Amino acid sequence: MSIQHLDFYFDYISPYAYFAWFNVKALCDRRGLDLYAHPVLFAGLLNHWGQLGPAEIPPKREFVFKDAARYAARRGIAFTMPQAHPFNPLLALRLSHVEPDAAKRRAIIDEIWKVGWQEGGDLASPEVLRRALALAGLQAAEWLPRATTPEMKDQLRHETEAAVARGVFGVPTLIVGDELFWGNDRFDDVEAYLDGNDPLDREFIAHMLARPRGTDRPGKGTKA
Amino acid sequence: MSIQHLDFYFDYISPYAYFAWFNVKALCDRRGLDLYAHPVLFAGLLNHWGQLGPAEIPPKREFVFKDAARYAARRGIAFTMPQAHPFNPLLALRLSHVEPDAAKRRAIIDEIWKVGWQEGGDLASPEVLRRALALAGLQAAEWLPRATTPEMKDQLRHETEAAVARGVFGVPTLIVGDELFWGNDRFDDVEAYLDGNDPLDREFIAHMLARPRGTDRPGKGTKA
Repeated sequence: MSIQHLDFYFDYISPYAYFAWFNVKALCDRRGLDLYAHPVLFAGLLNHWGQLGPAEIPPKREFVFKDAARYAARRGIAFTMPQAHPFNPLLALRLSHVEPDAAKRRAIIDEIWKVGWQEGGDLASPEVLRRALALAGLQAAEWLPRATTPEMKDQLRHETEAAVARGVFGVPTLIVGDELFWGNDRFDDVEAYLDGNDPLDREFIAHMLARPRGTDRPGKGTKA
Repeated sequence: MSIQHLDFYFDYISPYAYFAWFNVKALCDRRGLDLYAHPVLFAGLLNHWGQLGPAEIPPKREFVFKDAARYAARRGIAFTMPQAHPFNPLLALRLSHVEPDAAKRRAIIDEIWKVGWQEGGDLASPEVLRRALALAGLQAAEWLPRATTPEMKDQLRHETEAAVARGVFGVPTLIVGDELFWGNDRFDDVEAYLDGNDPLDREFIAHMLARPRGTDRPGKGTKA
């Protein structure tokens, strides 16, 4: 197995995806891997799987923000909440597709994270996104209109559908080869996997997962 | 703030709650804290919050079991899946309430975890639960009928409702004083909190959480 790239699925709505973006960049740079950044609409994933996001369950919303703030405080990472949350991330996500050059696309994504989660800007606001583009050295007047073309809208929809097809159910998600890792907490497992040291006994797991379901809540969930 | 006890909320359905049970026991023993173990019906929490559990989303189910197996493999913890999963945990949960003596109740809970997640028994089966009681040194003939009285059914319902009222949305959850920690991954944060070293800036968090919501999915979630 020769891994040349990582697939990273994110939405600007998630504080854990904010942390993971910088972690996955560092990981890829350290190991000489290409980073395939996939902006996806988290609400689209939730709709597909019939799930709620943390921001839709009041005590989970509170826990998640405290948890993220603790993570940032311990590591000295700049962290605040965008001006409104949850927010409509469509324009920000589409902007993250629009630039064909990978390095420039990384710069756009960097700056969108920063204006939202470091400066507390409203990531649904074209003005705030203009500022992110300027910080990335790009002309907002040129790029903002490109992000709202039917092609870019289609591309975001396709990315989200392709993520669902690969089993992505949350953000951030990292896929290495065919192995899916969910969350910002599992970089140690990703590193071990890349080193060929995944402790997983795959035969045992396949055997476990094939065990029968004993019960299901009526009408709930997707039965595999 | 003088913390004398921890509240631990669990359901036998969760592999993370299995790991957390042994972690929270060790934490309480090390610090001389009383452990208040609250068996709750995870499906009841999900119903209240309108959420799906990991076992109801096929790729999340797969990830969670792999993740749990990795955790166990790294630490040399015995780990398998109960014979059917998900399973109906009602009898197991009610049995975990029935014994008034705290030490004996801990022993019952210990053995139920073991027969399910170490031996791979069916935790919905009275025969398997009989074995857990025997391992805990108790007479199944005496205790099994007590677990199915209307009082014990009410007690489990009350525990689950009380958990919801405290904001419990998942298992395992630990509440220290009034602070809620979700998951088996956050014991470092719990220890820091107990040491008075929580890095959280509470004024900042209150300010962030009071920010307006910018968007909501129509009809989804509980708006705080």
